[in-house]
Amino acid sequence: MSTYKAPLTDIRFALYDVLGAEALFAKLGYVDATRDVLDAVLDEAARFTETVLAPLNSVGDEIGCGFDKATGDVTTPPGFQQAYTQFIEGGWTGLTAAPEHGGQGLPHAMGVPLNEMINAANLAWGNFPLLSHGAVEALRQHGEDWQREAFLKPIVDGRWTGTMCLTEPHCGTDLGLLKTRAEPNADGSYAISGTKIFITAGEHDLTENIVHLVLAKLPDAPPGAKGISLFVTPKFKVARDGSMGERNALRCGSIEHKMGIKGSVTCVMNFDGAEGYLVGEPHKGLLAMFTMMNTARLGVGLQGVGLSERAYQNALRYSLDRLQTRSLSGPKFPDKPADPIIVHPDVRRMLLTVKSLVEGSRLLALHAGTLIDVAHHAEDAAEREQADVLVSFLTPISKACQTEWAIENTYNALQCFGGHGYIREHGMEQLARDARITTLYEGTTGIQALDLMGRKTASTKAAGLKLFLTQIEAFAKEHEGDASLSEFILPLRQKATEWAALTQGVLQRAAGNPEEIGAASTDYLFYSGYVALAYWWARSVAAAEASAHSDAFKQSKRETARFYFARILPRTLAHAAAIESGAAPLMAMDAERFGT
Amino acid sequence: MSTYKAPLTDIRFALYDVLGAEALFAKLGYVDATRDVLDAVLDEAARFTETVLAPLNSVGDEIGCGFDKATGDVTTPPGFQQAYTQFIEGGWTGLTAAPEHGGQGLPHAMGVPLNEMINAANLAWGNFPLLSHGAVEALRQHGEDWQREAFLKPIVDGRWTGTMCLTEPHCGTDLGLLKTRAEPNADGSYAISGTKIFITAGEHDLTENIVHLVLAKLPDAPPGAKGISLFVTPKFKVARDGSMGERNALRCGSIEHKMGIKGSVTCVMNFDGAEGYLVGEPHKGLLAMFTMMNTARLGVGLQGVGLSERAYQNALRYSLDRLQTRSLSGPKFPDKPADPIIVHPDVRRMLLTVKSLVEGSRLLALHAGTLIDVAHHAEDAAEREQADVLVSFLTPISKACQTEWAIENTYNALQCFGGHGYIREHGMEQLARDARITTLYEGTTGIQALDLMGRKTASTKAAGLKLFLTQIEAFAKEHEGDASLSEFILPLRQKATEWAALTQGVLQRAAGNPEEIGAASTDYLFYSGYVALAYWWARSVAAAEASAHSDAFKQSKRETARFYFARILPRTLAHAAAIESGAAPLMAMDAERFGT
Repeated sequence: MSTYKAPLTDIRFALYDVLGAEALFAKLGYVDATRDVLDAVLDEAARFTETVLAPLNSVGDEIGCGFDKATGDVTTPPGFQQAYTQFIEGGWTGLTAAPEHGGQGLPHAMGVPLNEMINAANLAWGNFPLLSHGAVEALRQHGEDWQREAFLKPIVDGRWTGTMCLTEPHCGTDLGLLKTRAEPNADGSYAISGTKIFITAGEHDLTENIVHLVLAKLPDAPPGAKGISLFVTPKFKVARDGSMGERNALRCGSIEHKMGIKGSVTCVMNFDGAEGYLVGEPHKGLLAMFTMMNTARLGVGLQGVGLSERAYQNALRYSLDRLQTRSLSGPKFPDKPADPIIVHPDVRRMLLTVKSLVEGSRLLALHAGTLIDVAHHAEDAAEREQADVLVSFLTPISKACQTEWAIENTYNALQCFGGHGYIREHGMEQLARDARITTLYEGTTGIQALDLMGRKTASTKAAGLKLFLTQIEAFAKEHEGDASLSEFILPLRQKATEWAALTQGVLQRAAGNPEEIGAASTDYLFYSGYVALAYWWARSVAAAEASAHSDAFKQSKRETARFYFARILPRTLAHAAAIESGAAPLMAMDAERFGT
Repeated sequence: MSTYKAPLTDIRFALYDVLGAEALFAKLGYVDATRDVLDAVLDEAARFTETVLAPLNSVGDEIGCGFDKATGDVTTPPGFQQAYTQFIEGGWTGLTAAPEHGGQGLPHAMGVPLNEMINAANLAWGNFPLLSHGAVEALRQHGEDWQREAFLKPIVDGRWTGTMCLTEPHCGTDLGLLKTRAEPNADGSYAISGTKIFITAGEHDLTENIVHLVLAKLPDAPPGAKGISLFVTPKFKVARDGSMGERNALRCGSIEHKMGIKGSVTCVMNFDGAEGYLVGEPHKGLLAMFTMMNTARLGVGLQGVGLSERAYQNALRYSLDRLQTRSLSGPKFPDKPADPIIVHPDVRRMLLTVKSLVEGSRLLALHAGTLIDVAHHAEDAAEREQADVLVSFLTPISKACQTEWAIENTYNALQCFGGHGYIREHGMEQLARDARITTLYEGTTGIQALDLMGRKTASTKAAGLKLFLTQIEAFAKEHEGDASLSEFILPLRQKATEWAALTQGVLQRAAGNPEEIGAASTDYLFYSGYVALAYWWARSVAAAEASAHSDAFKQSKRETARFYFARILPRTLAHAAAIESGAAPLMAMDAERFGT
C-alpha cells in the first residue's frame, strides 16, 4: 500500500517564500487571510486528507463504484460517503467561494494546496467535488439571478454537486457536432433530450441533488460550435424559489469500466426531455462552458501534482529501505548486507527527476492560482487584465505539463520498486493507472498544446508569453549581481531568449501554412513547460536563500535545481529541434501510406 | 477490443531486403531455410497468432489465472490450454531448436518474427512457452549428458515448460544475497529448500511437467555471487533414464495480483527439500543463468515490439475512422461532418512516432537474432567471436529500448483514442498495462543500462561499440555517392562520431570516479538506441529503394525515415547533454536531503 503525508514544508515554502502570498493576499483585500488562518487551513487540510481520504484510496480502486441497471443508481465505494460528510462539515467545499454564497472567501490560490492534497490522498474521491467549482463559476458569471440564488448555496455548501455534460459518443473535442436538443417548454424552461458520455460524477449517492450543466442545441441553432447553448439541468427539479421538486427525466444509463480512477464514476447520462434552464445567452453556451473548463483544467493539472508527490514519497521510502548491491564507489553501509538502492546514481536520477518536476509543478500551479486572485481582485484594471492574459497562457502549460509529468513521475517512482512496483499490493501501479486519465480528460495534451500555440499565442501575438518573459527578465535583473545564482540566471536568460525566437519562428511559418501551428504545438508546450520550471527553480533557490529555512533545506533546493538544469532542462534541445523541423515531416505522408 | 494482423510485408522487408537473410542463412549452412520454407513459416505463424492467440488476449486479461490454495494448482484462462495444444501440434516450440533434440533446426533469427507475432497477439499467453528457450540453452550448454537426454526433448516438444527461479523476497538484482540452500543427497542429487518469487509460469495446467532452473547455494559456497549454483528441479522428479517419477517437494504458495499480463501467472514457489540436479560446475551457476538471461532479455525486447505493433495498428485504424474537427488548412473531407483525426499534425506526430519506433525496433531485434546465428554457425572463428561481442553489446540496448519505446508507443496509441482509450472495452489500456512489466522483468532498464555502460563498454574498451560503428561506417561509405541517401547518411555519420566521443568521455571520467558509469548509463542507453535506429532507418530507405516493393512502400519508408531524423533523433541532444553533465548533479545530495 502506498502512503501519503502532506508536504506542508514545501507547500508553505512555495506559497509564502517563493510567491509571497501573505503580502499579495493582503494587497488584494483578503483581510481574513492572515498567516495564522492560512497555516491552520493547511494543517487541517493535511489532517483530513492524510487520515480520512488517503486510507480510502486503495478501497476505491479495489471495490470501485456499483451500478444498478434497474434504477440507474450508483453506489460509491465503502467509506466515500462518510468522508464526504466530513468534507462538508469541515467547510471545505466553500473554502474559496464568496461569502454571499455561503463560502469562506479565502483566496482562490488556497484551493491549490487543498486540491493537491486531496488528489494525492485519493484522486478518485476528489473527482466527486471537483467539478462543483466550475459549476459555481459558470452560474456565478453567466446565470440568471434566480439560478444563482437557487443553485449556488447548495453547491457551495456541498449538499449538491455539479457536472459538465459536454461529450457525446461521436464528439468530444468537436462540440459543434453535438446532437443533444433543447425544446422550449411553455413555462420558460427547456426539455433536454440526448445522450452524454464520460460524465464524471454524473450519478452517485453522496448528495441529495446533482446539478448537470448540459450543452445542447436550440431548435433555431445555427450549425456548428456557434449554435450551442448551456442548460442547468438538475437530477431533481429546482423551482425558482430554490425548492427541490420531483425527479427529473434523466438517468445514468451505464458506467464505464476504466483503467484506473475506479473509485470515481464515469457515467453515460440519458436525458429524456429533462427540464433544464438556459444559462446565459442562447447559442453562447461555449463561452460559459469555457469558464468551467479553465477551472477544471487547472484542477486536473493539480491531479498531476498530487499523484507525483505521492509517487515520490513512496519511491523515496523504498529507495532508502531496499538493500541491493553495493555502491560502485565502495560500500556505503558496510555493516548491512548491501547498500540501500538510493546510493546508485541511476536510482538518484529517477528520484531527482520526480522531485524536481513535482516541486516545480507545485509552483507552476500555485502561481496560476495567485494569478486568478489578481485577475479578480487587483485594484488596477490593467493589472487584472494582465493577470488574466497570463493565466490564460499558463493554463494549458500547467494542465498538460503537470499531467504529462505525472505519467513520467509515476513511471519513475514505480521503476524504483523494480518488479515489486508491478504488484498491486504496493500501490504504485494504481498511481500509474490513475495518472493515465489526466492527460486525456478536460482536453488531451494535444488539445492543450493547440490551445497554447493557437488561441493563446498565435491569436494574441504572444501576449501571454511576453508577460511571462517580462517577469523572468525582471527576476533575472533583480539577481544579476548575485554570483550564487548566476549558474541558474545565465541559462535561464538564454532559454527565455530562445523561447521568444522559437515562437516568432513558428508564427512566421504559420503565416504561410496554418499546419505549422499544430505541427509545433506539443513540442512547444513541453518546451514552454521546461523553461517555466527553470524559472521556478531559479526563483526557488533565491527564495530559499532569503528564507529562514534550515541549511539542509536550502542545500536541497540548490542541489535539486542543479540537477534540473543539468539533466532535465536539456530536453528543450530536442523540443526546439523538433519545433524548428516544421510541418513537412509530419504532413508529407498520405493517409493511406501510414498502413504500409 | 483491439485487433491484430501480423505485419508480414514489413517483417519480410526487414528479414529479406534489409538484412539479406536468405543469403546469410545459406552461408551459415541452414540448407532447409529456403525462401519458400521461411515464407510458409511466416504465413502459418501469422495465421496461428491472428486466429488462435489474438482472440484470447482480452479473455486472459478479464479472467486471469486461478489459484487453488489447498493444492497449489494454477488454472490458466479459458482457451489457453487449447491454444497451447495447437502450438505444440504446429511444431512451434521446436522451430529453432536443433534436430537432435527434436527441433526443426531453422535459424534462430526465425524465432524473432514468430515471437513478435505471439507477443502482439497475446503477450500473457506467450509467457508460458517463453522461458523454455532459455532452459534449453542453459541445459544444452551447461548440462550433463543425461540431463540433456532427459530434459531437452520434452521441452523442445513443448510437453514440458521451463522456468527461471532467481528472485527471492529480499533480492532480485543482487543474487549474491540469496538464501535458497542445496544440500547433497546420497544419490548425487540435491535437496533444494527456499522461497523464490516472481516466477513466471512457475505453475500451470498446460503441460505434464515443469522444469525449474533454480539458483541456490551449496553448504560450502563462498559468500556472494561467486557461491551460487544452478539446479534443474522439476515439478515431477525425472530419473536418469528420462522417466517421470513422483511429485517433487515444491509447490506454488501464491500468485501475484498484477497491473497487467493477467493471463500470465507469477508465482511464489516454495521448495521444501525438492530433488534437484546440479547443472554445470558448483558455484558457477550465474554463468549458466546468464545464458538463459540473455535469451530471455531479447525475448522481452520482442514483447515491446509486439505490443507496439498492435498499438500502432489500432491507433491508425481509429485515427482513420474517427471524425472530429476540420484540418487547420481547410476541410479534407468536405462531404463528411468532420475530417478524420489523421489530418491533424499532432495526431500524425503520435502515429509517426510509433511507426518509426516499431519498424526500427523490428530491425534492431532481427539483427540481434541474425547475430546469434552468426555467432553459432559462421565458419570463421573470428566472425563468430565478433558476432558474439556485438550481440552482447546490442542485447541491453535491444531489451531496454524496445520495452521503453513500448511504454511510449502504447501511451501515444492510447492517446490517439482520447478518453475512449481509457475505457477497457477498446483494449488500448490493456496494452499499456501489459507493456508496463517489460521494463521491469529480466532486469530493469537501469540494470540493462549498467550492463551496457559497464560490462559491455567500460570493461571491453568499447569493443562492441567499435564493431557497430564499423558496420555503420561501411554502410555510409557504400552509399556516400548516393544523393538520395545523403539526407540520412550525413547526420548518421555525425551521430556515429559523437557516439564514439561521448563514450570516450564517460570512460575517461569513470577512470577517476566509478559513479560516472552509473550516472551516464540510462542516458547512454537511450542515446545508443536512437543512433542505432537512425542507422536502421537509413538502411531501410536504401533497402526499399533497391527492392521490388511498390512505390508507395518506398515512399512510406522514406517519409517515416525523414520523420525519424527530424523529430526523434534530436532526442540524442538531450541525452548527450545529460551524459556530459556527469555524476556530480546526481551524487551531491545526501540521502537525508531527498526528503526535504
